[in-house]
Formats: sequence, structure tokens, C-alpha cells
Amino acid sequence: MDYETPQFFRVMEYAADADRDVVDMVSGSPDWEPPAALREGLRTYAGADPADFQYPASIGLRDLREEIAQRRGVDRRQILITNGAGEANHLAMLGGLETMPGGEILLVDPVYPYYAGRANFIGADLSFVSAAADGHLDPGDVRAAASDETAVIVINSPNNPFGVTYGADTVEGVLDVAEEYDALLVSDEVYDHFDYTGRFSSALSVDSSNRVVTNSFSKTMAITGWRVGYAVFPQGGDAAAELLDDARTRHMLTNVTGSRPAQAAVLHALRNTDPEYFERNRERLRERIATFTEALDAAGAEYTQPEGAFYVMARFPDFPGTFENVFRLVDEAGVAGMPGETFGTSRGDWLRFSLTTDRVAEGADRLADFFE
Amino acid sequence: MDYETPQFFRVMEYAADADRDVVDMVSGSPDWEPPAALREGLRTYAGADPADFQYPASIGLRDLREEIAQRRGVDRRQILITNGAGEANHLAMLGGLETMPGGEILLVDPVYPYYAGRANFIGADLSFVSAAADGHLDPGDVRAAASDETAVIVINSPNNPFGVTYGADTVEGVLDVAEEYDALLVSDEVYDHFDYTGRFSSALSVDSSNRVVTNSFSKTMAITGWRVGYAVFPQGGDAAAELLDDARTRHMLTNVTGSRPAQAAVLHALRNTDPEYFERNRERLRERIATFTEALDAAGAEYTQPEGAFYVMARFPDFPGTFENVFRLVDEAGVAGMPGETFGTSRGDWLRFSLTTDRVAEGADRLADFFE
Repeated sequence: MDYETPQFFRVMEYAADADRDVVDMVSGSPDWEPPAALREGLRTYAGADPADFQYPASIGLRDLREEIAQRRGVDRRQILITNGAGEANHLAMLGGLETMPGGEILLVDPVYPYYAGRANFIGADLSFVSAAADGHLDPGDVRAAASDETAVIVINSPNNPFGVTYGADTVEGVLDVAEEYDALLVSDEVYDHFDYTGRFSSALSVDSSNRVVTNSFSKTMAITGWRVGYAVFPQGGDAAAELLDDARTRHMLTNVTGSRPAQAAVLHALRNTDPEYFERNRERLRERIATFTEALDAAGAEYTQPEGAFYVMARFPDFPGTFENVFRLVDEAGVAGMPGETFGTSRGDWLRFSLTTDRVAEGADRLADFFE
Repeated sequence: MDYETPQFFRVMEYAADADRDVVDMVSGSPDWEPPAALREGLRTYAGADPADFQYPASIGLRDLREEIAQRRGVDRRQILITNGAGEANHLAMLGGLETMPGGEILLVDPVYPYYAGRANFIGADLSFVSAAADGHLDPGDVRAAASDETAVIVINSPNNPFGVTYGADTVEGVLDVAEEYDALLVSDEVYDHFDYTGRFSSALSVDSSNRVVTNSFSKTMAITGWRVGYAVFPQGGDAAAELLDDARTRHMLTNVTGSRPAQAAVLHALRNTDPEYFERNRERLRERIATFTEALDAAGAEYTQPEGAFYVMARFPDFPGTFENVFRLVDEAGVAGMPGETFGTSRGDWLRFSLTTDRVAEGADRLADFFE
């Protein structure tokens, strides 16, 4: 077992060592302000009674679970507060692997590398279904890739790295496949507040005991380092009860509970943040998308029009998405992106650019100049 | 796999439902103030730049690791910041089980129940060595209980539930056994700031590639809910490197990283808290110990004189430490303690009382009256 330095560190380190100014379009950490109520919530918590500094319930602060339950239209008891979506995905994937028949986890290629790393780590067999040419996922392709061996199917919408948003048909179609093969659908929806189409459909919109929805406030509130996430488990039936028990036990024996200052501040922010905050973030990203895709047009690049999340996948003529070419872009263009090959095999010729920088226009100009 | 409600919840719920006022001497959550600099550190962090709200390094904030490394006299690269000592123990126990020969985890009875729960959960065979009559651990007894099957030995000093502090001879003796059987000693030292004897000896005082030291700021800074802990891994040799790699990878793929607000505030508190803060906490506990043990004397109880941590183990005449008797004490005396049977088999006749309440004197009076 190796400590795998995440690939994006390789690019970030290379960019940091470069002799020139580089526009960082590598990582997915928001560069914008969190909700004002989040800062306020943390400040208030800093003055709380010592009793409020002690263990919350292992499954998370009750008021936070209640607040999330009301917003998501589920029972509070279905919710487990986790150390970010990372732990939520870990619990859901491992729980599905242990409780469902089969030993395989089915992922979408191009894939968010943590899913593949985690699936490998927990000893699953991996299989992949390729996204369609437009970045969308065809449930028919998922059905063709699934088998009795499939224990877990993981999807991510709005999607990293492709920037597409799956509609209700896709989510329902994939869930049908999960039910058909007695598999667990893990639907990671961390970018749900960054849908630019209005078409986003949560897997919670379909009632099924074969799906776990994971989410976090990392992107929603621009706090990837705070680690407040959650999983919504299905209700009803022995299998669903076992899945939830399994996750609660694993969470308790691994982490005891999530960090309370962050939970308290997120709760305060949930209660005191206007929808305008989220709309402003979407508007900012819409502008960045327009700026960046105009430059891609100018550079003669092929790209997937982003419908959600923060990313653009692009392909430049005769410039495959290798580490070598990414390093060349750093040195010669002053722009750092991610090699397509780090997201699987289906888009190895492509590059991913993250729009989480206020220098998107500068990055776009540099790319347009370089490929001119 | 069942979601095991921790046993102390059973007692706390029973006490909460009682028709009378009950002095809560069940849980080990401090009831005193955290360092002022901790509150200040969190307030300052609440006003930080958005970049400081994003992912820290997976292994923890570099400055925090450096600060801990200097204090503990180790290399920063040996330190992994975890989600409390819970995760540190999880990583160390599971890492030892996977990298050392043998499939058994050896625990001390009476045992902190989380160790046994975790060892069961990760599929280890459990074996136990009984503490001596005075609560101390005899390395000769550990040697007699160990075998080639022993992969991990877990000790806790100052000790929960026994309140004893192991000296250098004990720690060195147990480490010798670990080396002899090619096992990993996991030394959980979360109560290291609560030693009333001056005799406490950290396992870090002996250089060995067979020991991991775990710790946290939960007790030290009275913040059990904040979840900032760490593990110090050994240095040198392939086995040590593998152990550290294994823990880093598992930590990254499970949690990504620990919560940053809590890490930032703990770092500020470490840098700006006088030794007097910790001495005041010890003084408060010394007084509570004196008050409580006087009452135990009056009640004709046998007890272990606390040398560290927050707990007193006591045995009353003809009153074994069962749940039934604990519930009776709640109803008839108005004091809630923990049944000895929840800590293993060797002290089933005993009760554990936690001194983390400012009503220790009231609890002591009630017990003295009840057993008079």
C-alpha cells in the first residue's frame, strides 16, 4: 500500500517551482467568500459554554441533522454527519461493498480520482463505464457495464471533471440498473448548488432502498478544509437498516464524531444565509465559464460546455492531456491545468481547467495566445 | 455488525429519565474552561482569508505538526494530525494489525471500551492481560499474555478507567515485550497533562520502531468535541516507513484531512497558553480527588488512589458494579457512575466515577449517606 500523493499535488508543485507567474487552474478549492453567517457562527461558537465544546452525538449535532432533513425532505434518522463528503463516500462505498452481493464497484470514466483510489483501497474490483461524447451518462451504457458482480455504482452530478449535470432521466435510469443488479447507487452531489441549467436532479427525488446520497458544505459554503459532510441513507427494510448501522458503527469507531466548531458554524450559516449568496456564486462562475470558453474558441479547442460544478474539459489540437504537456503549459503559457490521463482512460487527450481563481480571464488569454 | 450504543449512553439516559436530581459522574468530558487562547484562536480564524478555509495538507497543518514535533522532540514527518485520538488509535491499531505478524490485539483489563470495540470491528482476535490489584501493569504479566500471534499491544497512561500512571519501568518493560514478539505498542497518552505523581513516562522516551504514541487535545484543552489528535510514528527502517505510509493513505482516503478551524485554534492555543493553565486543571482535580476519596473512606469503600486522569474506581461492600446497581444508585442516591462490568471482567465488582463535574462534593456526600 503506497501513500499516493494526489496527482494534483504533482502539478501544483511543478507550478510553484516555475520561474514565471502561473495561473493556478488545478485544484477545486473555491476562491470566494463563505457566507457571512458562517464566520459569524464560528465567532459565536468561540464564546460558547465549555459544555458545548464536548462530544456531540457521534452521528452529528441533532439540530444540524434536523435542518438538513427538513431541507432535503427526509427523516432526520436517515442522516449521518461525516468528516466531509470524503468520509460520506467512504462509508457509503464500503457499506455497499460489504452488504450488497458482488465485489465490484462501477465508476464513470472520466472519474474523480478519489473514487478509484478509495475503491482500490477497500479491496473492490473496479470497472468503468465511459461517459458519452457530450460528457453525459447513458443509463443504457451503465446497464451494459453492470453485472451480478456489481455491488456499488458511484455517480457524481454536477460532475467533476466533466462539468455536466445529470437530469432526472439519467438518475432514474441508473437507479433502475442498481435495483436490477441489487447494487447500491452512491450519488455524490457536492456540487448541487452549482447547477447552471436548472436541470439537476438529486437521487433523493426517487424513493429507493438502493441509493445513498452524499453531500457536503465544502463547495456550497466555500470551506473545503472544514470537513462537514453528510450521507442520506435509505429507509425501510432490513438491508437499509443494516447499511445505516454499518456506517454509524464504522464512523463511531473510526472518528468518534465530526468536529463540532465546524458543525456549529455550518448550522448557523444554513439558518441565516439567503438564497442570493448561492446565486451570486453561480453568477460568478457563469461569467468565468463565458470568459474561458470564448478563449477556448479562439484557441481552436474542443470543449464540453459546463452545465455545473467548476470545471472545463478541453482538448487542443495536437496537444494530448499528458503530464508532459501540462508541464509545458506551465512553463510556456503560464497556466496550470490537470492532465486528462489522471481521470481515467477515456479522455486522456483532454485537459481539465478549474475556474476557482479570479484570474480566469488572464489564464484564458494566455491559452489563446499560446495556441494561436 | 451492530451499531453499538456506547454503554455510557445507557447510564446517561437512565439518569436523565430519573425523577430526581442526579450528579453525573459518567462521561469523561471536562467541565472546565479551555485555554483563553483557544477561544481567541478560533475567533481570529473566523476572520481569516477564504484561502485559509480550504484543504490543509491531508496530514495536517504544517505549523501544527512542527509545533507538536518541537514539544515532543520528534521529527515533524513522524506526525500525522488526526480526527482526535479516536482516529489516531484506529490508524495505529489497524496499521499494526496489517503490517506486523500475528492477528491478535492485546489489551489491558480493565479496558477503555473503545479499544475493544475497535479491535473487534477491524477483525482482530482479542486477548487481555489483567492489571495488578493496585491498578498498575506488570510487564511480566504482559510477557506471559503475549505470543507470536500478538500484532498490537495497546496501553493507556495515565489510565482510563483506573486512574493510575505508568512509570518508565512499565513503559520500557512493555515495549521490550512488543519488540520481542515483533508487535506494535500503541501508547495512548491523552491524559498526559493530568498526571498527579510526576512519574508519567511517555513511550516517546524510548527510541523504538515498535511503538506509536497517540494523543489529542480533547482532554488537554477541554475540547473533546473538536477532534484534534495526532499519532507519532516511528522512524527508520522499511517497516516503520510502511506503517506511516499505510496510516497516511488510510487517513487521506477516509477523511481527506482533519477539520481546519479546530487545527488552527489548537495551534494558536499551543503557542499562547501558559503552563499555569494546565497546573490549575490538575489542582482542581487534586481537590476533587481528595473530596471524593474522603467520602469513599466514610462509605467504607475500597478504591484505587488516582495518580492521573479523571477517574476513581471504587468498590462498595456487597454492591457489585452491575448496571442494576448503577441504576439503583441513580434512583436511590442520586449519583450516576459507570458499571465496572463495562470495562472487562477483572473489575466487574467495581464502579467508575468520573470527576468531571463541579458537583463532586455533592456526589461524594450522597454516596457516603447511601452507604452509611
